[in-house]
Amino acid sequence: MELEYVLPKDIERRSFEIIEAELGDRKLPEDIRPIVMRAIHTTADFDYYDNMYFSEGAVKKALSAIKSGAVFVTDTNMAKSGINKPALARHGCSVECFMADRDVAEAAASNGTTRATASVDKAAQLGKPVIYAVGNAPTALVRLYEHITAGTFVPELVIGVPVGFVNVVQSKELIISSGIPCIAARGRKGGSNVAAAVCNALLYIADKE
Amino acid sequence: MELEYVLPKDIERRSFEIIEAELGDRKLPEDIRPIVMRAIHTTADFDYYDNMYFSEGAVKKALSAIKSGAVFVTDTNMAKSGINKPALARHGCSVECFMADRDVAEAAASNGTTRATASVDKAAQLGKPVIYAVGNAPTALVRLYEHITAGTFVPELVIGVPVGFVNVVQSKELIISSGIPCIAARGRKGGSNVAAAVCNALLYIADKE
Repeated sequence: MELEYVLPKDIERRSFEIIEAELGDRKLPEDIRPIVMRAIHTTADFDYYDNMYFSEGAVKKALSAIKSGAVFVTDTNMAKSGINKPALARHGCSVECFMADRDVAEAAASNGTTRATASVDKAAQLGKPVIYAVGNAPTALVRLYEHITAGTFVPELVIGVPVGFVNVVQSKELIISSGIPCIAARGRKGGSNVAAAVCNALLYIADKE
Repeated sequence: MELEYVLPKDIERRSFEIIEAELGDRKLPEDIRPIVMRAIHTTADFDYYDNMYFSEGAVKKALSAIKSGAVFVTDTNMAKSGINKPALARHGCSVECFMADRDVAEAAASNGTTRATASVDKAAQLGKPVIYAVGNAPTALVRLYEHITAGTFVPELVIGVPVGFVNVVQSKELIISSGIPCIAARGRKGGSNVAAAVCNALLYIADKE
């Protein structure tokens, strides 16, 4: 099996050509297309063609939040690390992850919750437009749902792509049912890498606006 | 669909029970089992049952490297971010990622290579036992292969789990063919999350030794 000769700068473009070719007749609406493509690019898993959910107007809402300098909040430092920092800076956006914060650990311990839950409570205090990206912890989505239904914290967009086996499927259906602007990967799949990929795809769309 | 009530501390254990149950009759040798299980846990993708390759004695070699205080080198800051820092510290190990280093960017630009290639060259200068974990860049595996065959840099273990469409499959077969102690995910799948999961699984096995 021979190596294909591709210049470093062309690797990503060539990857998207291959994804495009393999999708074949499976078409995607123009607005969500770059996001689904990037999820597939990040995972080499075409399941994301079928499992990505977008609430109506979710991408438009995200772009408007990005233009207002939204704070991306992630539920892992890994997702934070994967978000393109120059792209954030181009739009006056920033990214926060509270998972390793001492006050979050203390709140989680004293309330008997996860740190992911306590991180949502901390983000609720930011007083800024937030895009909340969940790639790991279903408990973060459950807590977001509680805040949204109580009206105590309503992000501009929730990216709900936790991965796993315990309450992952349920938490995604819950956040979808809330009616909030939302991009989710239905089912068990997702991850910090997918969360970062969706954030980056949105930032790259914003670059072209 | 009801949420399952699981205490925060029990979520991981419960997840592994579910993976175990769904694997059913598909058995795994004891030594590689925790690594494959953790790759599935990280991705919710049972393909890792079939696609994980372990060179003979790879786990034993990894444990011995961990006990000698190996440096984990990753090809993304995302993978670095996902490796358990207290677990590293328990074994006197550390983790480095050179991808954002200025000298790496300069070497890549002047040699017309990727930063991943230049990062391998930088790691070759460490003069310490290295576990090299590649979750993103096939060019890193190709460069490792060149060093290994030339005898200029031979890591204790290579974790070859890049994801993608251009030279990913080929680069994994190349590193497997080198005969070096190696853990790889054959095919297109993998990622920074999988790279971190394999590193963590090895550290947790070392904890129990």
